[in-house]
Amino acid sequence: MNILVTNDDGIHAPGLHALVQSLKKLGKVTVVAPATEMSAVGHAITLSDPLKVKEIHKDGQFFGFAVTGTPADCVKIAYGALLKEMPAPDILVSGINLGSNTGINVIYSGTVSAATEGAILGVPSFAISLATFQNPDFSAAAKFARDMVPIVIETPFPSGVYLNINVPAVPAKEIKGIRITRQGMARYREEYHVRTDPRNLKYYWLTGEKIDIETDEGYDDRAILNNKISITPIHFDLTYYPYLDKLEKLDITFQENNGTS
Amino acid sequence: MNILVTNDDGIHAPGLHALVQSLKKLGKVTVVAPATEMSAVGHAITLSDPLKVKEIHKDGQFFGFAVTGTPADCVKIAYGALLKEMPAPDILVSGINLGSNTGINVIYSGTVSAATEGAILGVPSFAISLATFQNPDFSAAAKFARDMVPIVIETPFPSGVYLNINVPAVPAKEIKGIRITRQGMARYREEYHVRTDPRNLKYYWLTGEKIDIETDEGYDDRAILNNKISITPIHFDLTYYPYLDKLEKLDITFQENNGTS
Repeated sequence: MNILVTNDDGIHAPGLHALVQSLKKLGKVTVVAPATEMSAVGHAITLSDPLKVKEIHKDGQFFGFAVTGTPADCVKIAYGALLKEMPAPDILVSGINLGSNTGINVIYSGTVSAATEGAILGVPSFAISLATFQNPDFSAAAKFARDMVPIVIETPFPSGVYLNINVPAVPAKEIKGIRITRQGMARYREEYHVRTDPRNLKYYWLTGEKIDIETDEGYDDRAILNNKISITPIHFDLTYYPYLDKLEKLDITFQENNGTS
Repeated sequence: MNILVTNDDGIHAPGLHALVQSLKKLGKVTVVAPATEMSAVGHAITLSDPLKVKEIHKDGQFFGFAVTGTPADCVKIAYGALLKEMPAPDILVSGINLGSNTGINVIYSGTVSAATEGAILGVPSFAISLATFQNPDFSAAAKFARDMVPIVIETPFPSGVYLNINVPAVPAKEIKGIRITRQGMARYREEYHVRTDPRNLKYYWLTGEKIDIETDEGYDDRAILNNKISITPIHFDLTYYPYLDKLEKLDITFQENNGTS
């Protein structure tokens, strides 16, 4: 089995290493990951600059390709250039991210965007994140990722559908099972800290906390708070279908005569 | 009426200027836009660095705030800091982007991500793009944006739903009307040009062209190719609902005993 692994915390991140060590038991793992941390880059791609690629060795062995780009760039360049001569990967796994990717954060997530790119390329894909920023123990998530690989490969997902997995940051024996969830819509209470730099210019630093998290365990954040592994099937079609008809009825027109007024 | 305008081509982009000039006829326009070009940044937000803000003057008058961040940052900081003491905007308009934001490009688009951020904050929002990179004439799109402002404010969109508008790059009199569309799923044929730098290191440059564009005018790209203005209702809930039940039936479990093996 050929497994392509990437992330958004960068090729040196412990979460990536834990994932690689675990998935190696299933087959050949190829790492193509950002050279530096790329958190909250969203689904960015690099168009105006070229990408550079460096081969990274660890413990005297080839570990993977470090790319001077985003997670989406890594997946694109893996398929488009680096792995062109090799057998195509059977699956793409992105992670293990340090910090959950749930709720509206999903749209900012580089980890998820790499899986999106996999789905666009037609390869079975999932993103996996650990819901903590402190003292991470990736072992349960790494094991679960390994369990999920054959399931994701064997499940006939519709084109463009992939999984966003979040694992609670508790010891394995405290994990209370799996919950299939939807993306939560909890908002953030955000605040900018306004400070003054040494030249007396103002600068702004974003802080925030999630509020109004859904109480229903069928939403990603609540499932994790209840110590369950959250699995959300996602896709990249943003169309809000229920409104297609309603917009038709608005009968919007383009008035050419006022074109330049 | 208070209108907040942003974009991803940067505060000095001609498309932004054309939009501001047009929308001024409706009320007070406030510009909060990236200091530099931010194309294809996707829905990125800046967390690890502070944001700086500069007041930009043009022709001796205050024009707007330039932010050292992404389009999503601009909307966040407008609401979270810069406009806090002013009346809340009635609408957010992002654009006019140089180049269409259609199909899978929608998920990479900084222009769309600014409107997404508006929708998250609960303000009526739309993104508007002109489908060309060459010799742009923004006048028809600027006029149409003005026509759309009252429509978007008065239409009771469900929470989190907003519009992605793309205007064909033809003279106003050749525009054949409006089409309500869905996001297309046409793929790209992508290729990396591999080159060698002066130090003999390889670098990679992404190129690509869209292939297999849907023939049905109910998809964004085809509507534009048919010289119609494409309006797609979009949202930021990526959940693929049809698969929630199917995943439940897979009965995925977490095997604690193998947790660290």
